[in-house]
Amino acid sequence: MHDYVIFLHAVDAQTARSAAVIRDHCAHLDRLDAEGRLIAAGPFADSEAGGLIVGSFPDLQQAVAFAQSDPFVKRGYSRAQVRRWEWSYPENGHLGIVDPFPGSHPRFLNSLHLRATTRHFSPRPIAHELVELLVAAALAAPSEFNLQPWRPVVCHSSTDRQRLQRCCRDQVQVSAAALAVVCAVDPRVFEDQAPRAADELILHGERSPEQRDETIAFIRSCFVNPQDSAIRNGTIFGHQLLLAGLSRGLAGFWLGGFDQDALHQEFGLPTRAIIAGVIGLGWPSELNHPRPRHTMEQLVGWGHWPGA
Amino acid sequence: MHDYVIFLHAVDAQTARSAAVIRDHCAHLDRLDAEGRLIAAGPFADSEAGGLIVGSFPDLQQAVAFAQSDPFVKRGYSRAQVRRWEWSYPENGHLGIVDPFPGSHPRFLNSLHLRATTRHFSPRPIAHELVELLVAAALAAPSEFNLQPWRPVVCHSSTDRQRLQRCCRDQVQVSAAALAVVCAVDPRVFEDQAPRAADELILHGERSPEQRDETIAFIRSCFVNPQDSAIRNGTIFGHQLLLAGLSRGLAGFWLGGFDQDALHQEFGLPTRAIIAGVIGLGWPSELNHPRPRHTMEQLVGWGHWPGA
Repeated sequence: MHDYVIFLHAVDAQTARSAAVIRDHCAHLDRLDAEGRLIAAGPFADSEAGGLIVGSFPDLQQAVAFAQSDPFVKRGYSRAQVRRWEWSYPENGHLGIVDPFPGSHPRFLNSLHLRATTRHFSPRPIAHELVELLVAAALAAPSEFNLQPWRPVVCHSSTDRQRLQRCCRDQVQVSAAALAVVCAVDPRVFEDQAPRAADELILHGERSPEQRDETIAFIRSCFVNPQDSAIRNGTIFGHQLLLAGLSRGLAGFWLGGFDQDALHQEFGLPTRAIIAGVIGLGWPSELNHPRPRHTMEQLVGWGHWPGA
Repeated sequence: MHDYVIFLHAVDAQTARSAAVIRDHCAHLDRLDAEGRLIAAGPFADSEAGGLIVGSFPDLQQAVAFAQSDPFVKRGYSRAQVRRWEWSYPENGHLGIVDPFPGSHPRFLNSLHLRATTRHFSPRPIAHELVELLVAAALAAPSEFNLQPWRPVVCHSSTDRQRLQRCCRDQVQVSAAALAVVCAVDPRVFEDQAPRAADELILHGERSPEQRDETIAFIRSCFVNPQDSAIRNGTIFGHQLLLAGLSRGLAGFWLGGFDQDALHQEFGLPTRAIIAGVIGLGWPSELNHPRPRHTMEQLVGWGHWPGA
């Protein structure tokens, strides 16, 4: 896959386009977006009109084919020009930025501010492939000593979501969401897999082989309160899942009110399993705005407890 | 602020540019990026050469001034063309997507996979403005009943980070990071602010005024285990802070190994305060790759406990 810029030059900037052809143009872009290949699109806001689309395509031919099949082009409103382009970002070294970290997203910070909890969803399902993509992104979350103690129970089918809802004080958003995930953690991992975690540290040169026994003891000493560690690790997984969903246009909620025992029984969780919470995701049927927030002055302390 | 596309057309595609002028060009872009105004940049990868920059500017004049002061333009390698442009995304309705949720970021999901914990940093500081931006993004995280129980202690100065390091088993990454934040939570909020949370639900029509007393009781009943709730809410705040940092090119770590009592004493935390963890962020001096992961089959259960 390579990135291409498609310019849609207006043949005549004065010609009005019907709502139908604009809708078809958007649907054309939506199809590329659904495959995760639309990077950016938008109109020029000057007198020359036209627009610019950035997308990923296997080769120039397929980029050109996509441009030629755009309803604006097919109907003679626009002339397409396609150029191979490379988005510069830290991970490909293009910006010359010293920082090689692969996480820069100029618009992501803004979206964290715009995020609002959503509990009302359209009936549109989430494709199984997208569910796997989101769960995989959540499984890429950090965990203490890379122990990956998460054992999520994914409730995707309507039946599974209804079973889950009955364990969550019958809160209707659980089955209304197209996907609900129980963020469960197996705390036995903290004990059982400490040797493997120590070996990983030795492999990466962070500990010497002679320090193996003391490293295992150190790792275990970090989990004297396994309940707290389980909640922390499970919550990191869950929040990464929620934000991964957001990045694909989904919306959702965190849910902390559930019946632990009912959940254990319904989904066959062993007694030791600890549940950090439940995440729900779906295609929203409402546009929510963030709830009012306290000010930074009220909540944040600089080098001390806030307000102290 | 509006978005503008700056085209840098190569005056002569055959002319080689010195490493010095390329560095100057990157530094020019870095300055825009540091202000959070660079959206995308990159070269065309075809025979015509040149490149494309997308940025936010107060007006056309300032976009043109930025383009004209690009070292490629000043040195005569490139001719600049500036056009006002509007990025289409769900929240401005430009894509015609039914989903109005303001969180879509095609590249964000990928970056969750590329993220790796970083403990080695360059000495480059994080500007105070950026720290405020990141903390504000973390404060936009969801919390149970929007109670916002977070009381983060921000350690930005070198002195504060060293004080913190002494409370974190003297782990050197704490002071090496340009920013370290104690994700503390005040569990008294769960009890004290339940009436305010009930009033907010009533204001938004989710409960009737007659249900006020039972709503307050319901909210308090959700916090029968305030320790778990505090860890969950504090962790959501912390992970949102970490990912907000990533979106700006920073990298960092979660830290769970600290001396609770020492932290309470050093930073004046009341006895009731609960600490979910410590987040460190800085400009990375190393490119880390994600550690090996278990497979989805090993970790995830579909409608049941994994492996059951």
